[in-house]
Amino acid sequence: MVVMEQNAQAPLYIKMDEADNVAVVANDGGLPAGTVFVSSLTLLEHVPQGHKVALGDLKKGDPILRYNEVIGYAAQDIKAGSWIEESLVKLPTAPELDELPLSNKVPQALAPLEGYTFEGYRNPDGSVSTKNLLGISTSVQCVAGVLNQAVKRIKAELLPNYPNVDDVVALNHGYGCGVAINAPEAVVPIRTIQNLATHPNFGGEVIVIGLGCEKLAPERVVPGCDKGDIICLQDHKGFDAMIQKILQEAKVRLERLNQRKRVTCPASELVIGLQCGGSDALSGVTANPAVGFAADLLVRAGATVIFSEVTEVRDAVHLLTPRVVSEEVGQALIREMKWYDRYLELGEVDRSANTTPGNKKGGLANIVEKAMGSIAKSGKSAIVGVLSPGEKVKQKGLIYAATPASDFVCGTCQLASGIHLQVFTTGRGTPYGLAMAPVIKVGTRNALKEQWPDLIDVNAGRIAAGEVTIEDVGWEIFRLILEVASGRKETWADHWGLHNDLCLFNPAPIT
Amino acid sequence: MVVMEQNAQAPLYIKMDEADNVAVVANDGGLPAGTVFVSSLTLLEHVPQGHKVALGDLKKGDPILRYNEVIGYAAQDIKAGSWIEESLVKLPTAPELDELPLSNKVPQALAPLEGYTFEGYRNPDGSVSTKNLLGISTSVQCVAGVLNQAVKRIKAELLPNYPNVDDVVALNHGYGCGVAINAPEAVVPIRTIQNLATHPNFGGEVIVIGLGCEKLAPERVVPGCDKGDIICLQDHKGFDAMIQKILQEAKVRLERLNQRKRVTCPASELVIGLQCGGSDALSGVTANPAVGFAADLLVRAGATVIFSEVTEVRDAVHLLTPRVVSEEVGQALIREMKWYDRYLELGEVDRSANTTPGNKKGGLANIVEKAMGSIAKSGKSAIVGVLSPGEKVKQKGLIYAATPASDFVCGTCQLASGIHLQVFTTGRGTPYGLAMAPVIKVGTRNALKEQWPDLIDVNAGRIAAGEVTIEDVGWEIFRLILEVASGRKETWADHWGLHNDLCLFNPAPIT
Repeated sequence: MVVMEQNAQAPLYIKMDEADNVAVVANDGGLPAGTVFVSSLTLLEHVPQGHKVALGDLKKGDPILRYNEVIGYAAQDIKAGSWIEESLVKLPTAPELDELPLSNKVPQALAPLEGYTFEGYRNPDGSVSTKNLLGISTSVQCVAGVLNQAVKRIKAELLPNYPNVDDVVALNHGYGCGVAINAPEAVVPIRTIQNLATHPNFGGEVIVIGLGCEKLAPERVVPGCDKGDIICLQDHKGFDAMIQKILQEAKVRLERLNQRKRVTCPASELVIGLQCGGSDALSGVTANPAVGFAADLLVRAGATVIFSEVTEVRDAVHLLTPRVVSEEVGQALIREMKWYDRYLELGEVDRSANTTPGNKKGGLANIVEKAMGSIAKSGKSAIVGVLSPGEKVKQKGLIYAATPASDFVCGTCQLASGIHLQVFTTGRGTPYGLAMAPVIKVGTRNALKEQWPDLIDVNAGRIAAGEVTIEDVGWEIFRLILEVASGRKETWADHWGLHNDLCLFNPAPIT
Repeated sequence: MVVMEQNAQAPLYIKMDEADNVAVVANDGGLPAGTVFVSSLTLLEHVPQGHKVALGDLKKGDPILRYNEVIGYAAQDIKAGSWIEESLVKLPTAPELDELPLSNKVPQALAPLEGYTFEGYRNPDGSVSTKNLLGISTSVQCVAGVLNQAVKRIKAELLPNYPNVDDVVALNHGYGCGVAINAPEAVVPIRTIQNLATHPNFGGEVIVIGLGCEKLAPERVVPGCDKGDIICLQDHKGFDAMIQKILQEAKVRLERLNQRKRVTCPASELVIGLQCGGSDALSGVTANPAVGFAADLLVRAGATVIFSEVTEVRDAVHLLTPRVVSEEVGQALIREMKWYDRYLELGEVDRSANTTPGNKKGGLANIVEKAMGSIAKSGKSAIVGVLSPGEKVKQKGLIYAATPASDFVCGTCQLASGIHLQVFTTGRGTPYGLAMAPVIKVGTRNALKEQWPDLIDVNAGRIAAGEVTIEDVGWEIFRLILEVASGRKETWADHWGLHNDLCLFNPAPIT
C-alpha cells in the first residue's frame, strides 16, 4: 500500500498497488474539484471519501485496477482526475471455478509466537470459554414465549446469587417445525442448532426446551444428551409447572457454572471469528488489513481463526485457492462456492446481489472491489480447512467457513462453528453484537470513531490518516482479543447489552 | 358427523361421513384390544386416541375414506377392527391443479347477523384496533440490539405514565440486509415488513428504526411516511443519543395513543385470522369445525375472516375451488398452489413434508387427512378473495391467504394481512401467542384442557365427548372473539405474556 501524502490535513489518496490505475480518497468529507495532489494529479470533480479517482486517462473497456486486480472495466472514456462513480465500472465475470490454481503458493508458516495466554474457563471436555454463560437451547420457535418469561425470572430471581455466571442466553430461533426437515439442505439449520447448543461458552451445561410435537425432536438438538437435560412443555401441567421446571433445571446448572474460575490458558486454544459489515472502500485499506495482521498473529500463536462470507470471497477466490494447504482443501473451497452459485441461481440472482447502498455510498463500486477488501481479513497464512455453514471447527490455523455474508446469519453460523470471540470490521457503522461471544468492533474511518465513540472498540481509521501502521493496529487488536477473552476488558456491545437475534441459514423450504 | 356413542365413559368412535370406512377413537387414552362398540365392531388391537380403526375389511389398494374423501390407499389387507397405523396408508397424489372445478358450487350467503358489536379503538384512517399498541418497526436486524434496550427503557420509564396504552412492540426481524433484495421473490418479505409496520393495532402511529446502510432503506418500510417517523442510527452520535431519540419519538406517540378510548364498533369491522398447529385427528372433528361455525357467524356479521396454510389446503383444494365466488378468485387460488408446489420442488420436497411427529402421534396418517381437517376451519361460506403471503386484506367475507403452514410464519403473514385477532386450534398443544394481536387458543381434546387449563382458552374436546355441539362451541368462540376484541377478556397467552418472534417468509436467497 502506498499512502501518497502523510499529512492528514493535506489532500490524501491511497493506492493499494504500484500497478493500480485508481486510488481512493482518504480525507474525511472527500475532496473538492481542483484539489492538486503532490503527484500533480488534479481532481476534475468532487470525490467523496473512500471513492476512487482515476490516476490516468482510461479508454472505454480498459481494465480498472485496484489491489492490482481487475475490479471492473471502464464503461466509458474516463479522464485522469475524474471520480470513478459506480456506474462507470462494468462488473467483470466471476472467476471460473474449474480453472483455479490449487495449493500452488502455500505460504510458509510464519514464526511461532510463544507465551501468549488469556484467562479463560476450562470446560469438562477440555475446551475453553471466554464467557461463563447459561445457555438454554430450543428445538422450535413455539416455545419462545414461555422460555422468554422463564429467562426473565431466572435473571431477576436466580442470577444475582451466582456472581461468577455472566448471563443467561435463550437460544430462540425460527426453525424446528413447519419446515421441510428431510430436504437435502435441511442439514444446514439442523447442525447449526446442534452446534449452538453445545457452544464452548456454555461450559458443558445443556438444557433443551422442546414442545413435544415438533419436527426437530428435542433429543436431536444435543444427540446423546441426558434425558434430564430436555424439558418438553407438553409434558407439564400448565404454565406455572413449565416455568418452575425451567427455573429448577437452571438453578442446578447455575450452581455448577458458578463454581468455575478463570485459569490461565494458552492463546492457542482460542477460536476467533472474523467478519465485516457495512463495508466501505477503506475497509480493504485500514480495518481489514489490520485484522488480517492480527489473524496472522493468532495463527502464529497456534489459535484457530475463521473467516467467512461466500459472496464476498467469490470474486477473490483465485487469490485464496493458491493458499490452501492441499488439493482436498481447495476442492472443498470450490465445492462451497459452487453450492452458493447454484443457490443464488435458483433464486434468479448472482453474487452481485451482495452489495448494499451503504457499500456504494462508501465507495465500493461492486462486489469485486468489496471482495478484494474483504479477504484482507484473512491475512497471509495458509488456509488449512474449509467448513460448510454451521459446521463445528476441529482444527487450529486459518479456516474458511462458507457462510452467507449477512452479518447476523454469518454471526450465527460462526457461533455454531465454535468461535469464542468475533472481530467485526465496519465502515458505515453497526451496533451489531452477539449474546454468546464478545464482539470487538473495528472501524475503518476516523469519522466513524468520532460519530460512535462508545460503539467502536478499535479505530483503524488512523491508518488512512498515516498516524499508525497496519501492524500497530494489528497488534492492538491481538492484545485486545486476549484482554476481552480474559474478561478484563468489556466490548462496547457487551457494555450496552447490544445483542442481535440468532438468525439461522435455512436454504431448505418451509412448509 | 356421526358420534356413534354419546356416553363419554363408553367406548366411542367418530365417523365423519356415512360413506367412511374408517372412524377415529375419541376416548382419552385410546381403547384396548377386545373393546366392543354398540355397532358390534370389536377392536383387534389397542387403538390410541385420535387414531383410525377399520370399520370393515379392506383389501390392499382399497381407498381409505374419511370425510368421504380418499385420504389414502390400504398398503396391505386390513381386517375390520384393526388400528390403521400411519404405515398402512399409502399417500394419494395431490389434486391435479389444471382440472379443478371452479366456482361451480358457490354457497349462498347465509342470513346476515345483525347487531353484534365490540368496543374497539377507531384509527385515523377509519380502521379499528383491538389493542392500543405502540409499534416500533425496523428496516434491518442490525438495529435489534439498540431497539431492545430502548424498549426496555420505554416500558420501565414511559409506559407507566400512559395507562391507556397496552404495550410497546419491537418489530424485529431477520431481513433487511444480506439479502437478495431484487430477487423476484423478495417482494414477499418486503411487503410483509411494510404491512406489519402499519398494522391497525398501532393506531396509525409509525416509527421506523433504520441503520443507514442497509438494503431495505427505512423509507421503504412505510412508503410516503413522514421523515420524522424514521430514526437512522448512523445519524446519531453514539449510543445514548440513539436511545434518547427513540425515547423522545416514543413519548410523542404514547401521548397521542393514550388519548384514545374504546368506542362501540360493528363486528363487521373485525379481521379475524384462523390457524391450526400441533393438529391431531380430532382437529377436524372438534376444534376446526367449531371454528368453522364461528367463521360463518363472523361472515354473517359482515366481518373479514382469513384462513391460510398452503400445504394444509393443497390436498383439499378440490373442495375449495367450487366455493370461490368467481373464476378469477379460483385462478388466484390455483396460482398460489402452483407457486408453492414449485417452491417445494426447488427444495426437492413436496407437500408431504408438512406432517409432524406430533400430527402422527395424534392419529393423522398423512397430509391428506390433515388437510381435510384443516379446511374445516373455513366453515361453509363462499370464498371471496385470495391473498399472496403478507398481502394486506381489503375485503369483507371469507378470504384465503396463501401462507406457509408453519405456525409462527403463518402468524406473521396473517398479521401483515391485518388481522385484529387470531383463533388458533391445537390438538397436541402449543403456548403460541402474538404480541401484535390477541390469540384465542381452542383445544381439540378434553385431556389437553386438563393438562393445560391455563393456556387453552376454549375446550372443543367436549364435542367429541358428546357434551356440547359444534354449534355451541362455535357460538362460544364467536362471543369470546367479541369479548377479547373489546379488551374485556384476556387470552391466556396475553395473560402470561407469551409472544412468539416475528418470523418472515423469505423465499428469496440471502447473500
